[in-house]
Amino acid sequence: MNKKKVSLKDIAEKAQVSTALVSYVLNGKEKESRVGHEIAVKIKQIAKELNYEPNYLAKSLRSGKTQTIGLIIADISNPFFANIARIVEDEAKKYGYTVIIGSSDEKADKSWDLINVFLNRQVDGFIIVSSEDSEEQIQYLLDKNVPFVLLDRHFPNLPTDFVSLDSYKASFDAGSHLIRQGYRNIGLIAYKSRLFHMHERIRGYRESLEQHSISFHPEWLKEVEFDAVEREIKVGIDEMLASDSAIDALIFATYRLAIAGLKYINSLGLKVPDDLAIVSFGQAEAFDLYYCPITYVLQPMEALGKTAIEILVQKLKKPDPDRKHILMQAQLMERDSSRLKLKIS
Amino acid sequence: MNKKKVSLKDIAEKAQVSTALVSYVLNGKEKESRVGHEIAVKIKQIAKELNYEPNYLAKSLRSGKTQTIGLIIADISNPFFANIARIVEDEAKKYGYTVIIGSSDEKADKSWDLINVFLNRQVDGFIIVSSEDSEEQIQYLLDKNVPFVLLDRHFPNLPTDFVSLDSYKASFDAGSHLIRQGYRNIGLIAYKSRLFHMHERIRGYRESLEQHSISFHPEWLKEVEFDAVEREIKVGIDEMLASDSAIDALIFATYRLAIAGLKYINSLGLKVPDDLAIVSFGQAEAFDLYYCPITYVLQPMEALGKTAIEILVQKLKKPDPDRKHILMQAQLMERDSSRLKLKIS
Repeated sequence: MNKKKVSLKDIAEKAQVSTALVSYVLNGKEKESRVGHEIAVKIKQIAKELNYEPNYLAKSLRSGKTQTIGLIIADISNPFFANIARIVEDEAKKYGYTVIIGSSDEKADKSWDLINVFLNRQVDGFIIVSSEDSEEQIQYLLDKNVPFVLLDRHFPNLPTDFVSLDSYKASFDAGSHLIRQGYRNIGLIAYKSRLFHMHERIRGYRESLEQHSISFHPEWLKEVEFDAVEREIKVGIDEMLASDSAIDALIFATYRLAIAGLKYINSLGLKVPDDLAIVSFGQAEAFDLYYCPITYVLQPMEALGKTAIEILVQKLKKPDPDRKHILMQAQLMERDSSRLKLKIS
Repeated sequence: MNKKKVSLKDIAEKAQVSTALVSYVLNGKEKESRVGHEIAVKIKQIAKELNYEPNYLAKSLRSGKTQTIGLIIADISNPFFANIARIVEDEAKKYGYTVIIGSSDEKADKSWDLINVFLNRQVDGFIIVSSEDSEEQIQYLLDKNVPFVLLDRHFPNLPTDFVSLDSYKASFDAGSHLIRQGYRNIGLIAYKSRLFHMHERIRGYRESLEQHSISFHPEWLKEVEFDAVEREIKVGIDEMLASDSAIDALIFATYRLAIAGLKYINSLGLKVPDDLAIVSFGQAEAFDLYYCPITYVLQPMEALGKTAIEILVQKLKKPDPDRKHILMQAQLMERDSSRLKLKIS
């Protein structure tokens, strides 16, 4: 398989154009150089026929640009992140970027590995869904002036660009909705986490109770460990139901928590919403197919992904010391799982 | 931030060991060189403290090895592939490999892009879930002697290593199970695709009817376009139900098809399984949470992902012209959606 490497000149000769023109086209600069569409197509066709292989590595070392974006998500097996990855990819493609993806499994050390691997693969920039305790990595990227945008999660103390959900408001709205529907004893299951968005979800929930003059009972709030969701959710729900102020409604702070919780609620034979009303963060097919469609916090995934790419592409074009802080609003999708409470007289 | 770059020598001095030893440890070769665990930990710790940055790029150009595997999946927003990506990553990590992921969205041209991007990023090898019409790319990798393993889908005419599901057998079992449960008019919804595994699912279904002396009715088989699933599934189910031999059971050849189909079946007010029994490929939380838990074909995802990595790592260690062809067996998880048919007398 030791063929001579095909050069730009070989292509130029076959296409009967200049080598410079071939270079423009194969480097994706046909627009700048006003090359006709037909000739560009012809050049690409010939390059393909001849099995031309651009030496990207040498090229990147020269230009410092690879037209590649590294996307680090917190957990690829979580549909929310998998879907957002799909959106980021589609959007990046429109700007001529290829996205390579790594999943940190919510672990800071794996996220470090990925940042290093991607830096060494010379991505032009990053989109990062941060894992807990990864502030140091983000600071490192800031120090090195690597262009990046945080997505879905951010660190309020670090001067980064970010595109996140307004988790406080979304959670406040979820609680207020349940109260308006006649529920009073409202629980929240969240993760035990130092991540800001999780704290905001707790804060919004508590504020919704407070503003409606409902006294908060500590047993209504359960923060479960990421690595022990199934077990801790069972204990948590048991305690919430056994309390003197037993809950009549429950908010799940993430999709994963909702799935585990709903399985347990089913196994207890509780009927949604008559025995227990439900609102959850995160959209999912499982919520649609549940016997009682689940009211959920619709996160603007499309807009989150698109905006993150737009900001990053802008920064790649023209470095900008200003930071963009985008907090997007969720929309509460009201369905049967939180319908008006039956008053038992 | 223009600090002098930290060298192996700097680390060696601080750790009071030889530069060679530092090199061994930081290149992950401590086992070969019998370095003690404690000293290895110490060296890594110091490297971290000093913010040592290995020059992977220069290193890869020298050694030709990057300890990176490129994983191309067909669609990241499909939970089956997202979960398999997670397994591949976890497994690769055990062997010291980092996985970078790209999603082809079931499109051959995007898969080409990703193969090029990853080759130019110098991955050591590939795991590929092929998209339709991508034989040419696979042949290209074969011609170039790039180590790779096909996962979940393969091309029977190409001499590649692969790890796939025995789709024929899984589909045969699904059909036979429904027949044993008393159903006779069994439909199948699959994708219109040139991919081998999809044909095998259709073949297995038809064979199950044939072996049980049930005449196949053409209107029982619907092959829907990937880009028009929702619309074509509605039409397909309508036709299957309106037929003179109206179906009493339905098999979905993939998870996506099942979700779209179940939504439509719900909207028609049909009760599973009394009006229509269901079996589906692909496992999903939505199947557990459905009012009538769905019988499904459990694919051995863990084993599929692990075996693919094992074969690839073997090949990376020691090139081997032999090809491994692994067809794994699925397991039918029998649940309420296909329970014994009620005989109406």
